[in-house]
Amino acid sequence: MKKAYVHGYDHRENTRLQDQASTLVELLHSDTFYPAGSRILEAGCGVGAQTVTIARNSPHAIITSVDISEASLKEAKKRSTAAGLNNVRFEQADIFHLPYGQASFDHVFVCFVLEHLSDPTGALRALKHVLQTGGTITVIEGDHGSAYFHPDSEAAQKAIHCQVELQRRAGGNAMIGRELYPLLRRAGFSSIRVSPRMVYADSNSPELVEGFTKKTFTAMIEGVRESAVRAGLLEEHVFDKGIQDLYRTAEADGVFCYTFFRATAKRGDGRTTHSHHCRRR
Amino acid sequence: MKKAYVHGYDHRENTRLQDQASTLVELLHSDTFYPAGSRILEAGCGVGAQTVTIARNSPHAIITSVDISEASLKEAKKRSTAAGLNNVRFEQADIFHLPYGQASFDHVFVCFVLEHLSDPTGALRALKHVLQTGGTITVIEGDHGSAYFHPDSEAAQKAIHCQVELQRRAGGNAMIGRELYPLLRRAGFSSIRVSPRMVYADSNSPELVEGFTKKTFTAMIEGVRESAVRAGLLEEHVFDKGIQDLYRTAEADGVFCYTFFRATAKRGDGRTTHSHHCRRR
Repeated sequence: MKKAYVHGYDHRENTRLQDQASTLVELLHSDTFYPAGSRILEAGCGVGAQTVTIARNSPHAIITSVDISEASLKEAKKRSTAAGLNNVRFEQADIFHLPYGQASFDHVFVCFVLEHLSDPTGALRALKHVLQTGGTITVIEGDHGSAYFHPDSEAAQKAIHCQVELQRRAGGNAMIGRELYPLLRRAGFSSIRVSPRMVYADSNSPELVEGFTKKTFTAMIEGVRESAVRAGLLEEHVFDKGIQDLYRTAEADGVFCYTFFRATAKRGDGRTTHSHHCRRR
Repeated sequence: MKKAYVHGYDHRENTRLQDQASTLVELLHSDTFYPAGSRILEAGCGVGAQTVTIARNSPHAIITSVDISEASLKEAKKRSTAAGLNNVRFEQADIFHLPYGQASFDHVFVCFVLEHLSDPTGALRALKHVLQTGGTITVIEGDHGSAYFHPDSEAAQKAIHCQVELQRRAGGNAMIGRELYPLLRRAGFSSIRVSPRMVYADSNSPELVEGFTKKTFTAMIEGVRESAVRAGLLEEHVFDKGIQDLYRTAEADGVFCYTFFRATAKRGDGRTTHSHHCRRR
């Protein structure tokens, strides 16, 4: 089940994830709080970009943050120590083979993880297993199909599509945001509520233009240049024109739009909607 | 400047606009209020779908609703009478040749109009002329490039593109929503604020699925079937598959996303940002 992480693991990627996290914290996480004493599983914590936020938002919750990558965990631990967190424990684990028993957690938090998995429904089922009845799962994902901008640009769209295609080839889905409702439904969760969080950046919000349009989104697309060209997905000059056009949307009269999806759902009593068959003997 | 109205003027279109208006009223208009005694120009009122809402929201404002089409105005008057409105006056007028002097109005309201004009900046300038200094303009537009859904479908995307292309050939722009900021800027307005209003429809909100996904958006695309086929934009069976796939997004595990943009701006003191040249003699 181990797949190449499409964004890579280099230093620039860490910087990107940090910029992304600080700009989007308010938009994505301002309504995520967990009660004192509750047991939280953060599944796929990566380098800990979100860990610091959720741990600070819920200082009296007991957080277990897991990731499959030892290298990422090392970075996450460093960051956690630097932030002075004392309510987070880091553990190496595979979402599909979690070393926890049934109902070990009160709440589960998964952010920017499902997009990288070839079986997101299976992952959600595995997470449901370790969640207690009545417990909640919070899932946050982007959707690259939600990116549009002014001035519009075919080259920019093609460059974005390279990222989508590379992620698909690595077994993932860069347009998974819109699918959170059907995925959680299929995995047997109940009380599913999806809340889209749209980023709209024009010159009125220079911090978003800088932090999101340029340093998060465009930097991410720029980051797959070599892989895209090597895979023959796009000619170099078209890719470069695409990146140039994405930066163009960050100028004074430019506009950039992108939507993240935040879903919450509950682990019901184990019976799914479809289990109420008439049984006749 | 008179152009074909891409949606046509038939009865089914009126029903569509009514369904659209009632479902979206809260999302688009709940924050539009005008003070008692203020003079409002609604430019391009069409059949009056929005007129009833803004007139009821601001019962003591004095509203002048204009449209270029006598047929639409007749319908709008009927609707206004049926709604018992007593603060709206209807007049036939062309936005580009308004029969009003400078600063005749305190506020201007334009909804689903710029998308049909080949010179939206010129229209905004004409509206600015009749607006008093410090007065506001409110502009609301959709953006068909913001439509995405699950399950995704190439045929559905192609059918939507037919509408975009037909509107382009009629001189309009079905993806104008994202451009409100640069358009208002170019027209010389100040204090421009754009607020995207995203429609997210899954089974949790059956009224949105029914009222928006099916009766508004899909019905609108379905409405250009004959024109699209006649213009040779798409083969009939692909178009029909596209419509079928759009209805599919309204099923139990389907998701539909669309974004409207609401912008407000002010008529400044006449000096634009760029007028502060150093004049040396």
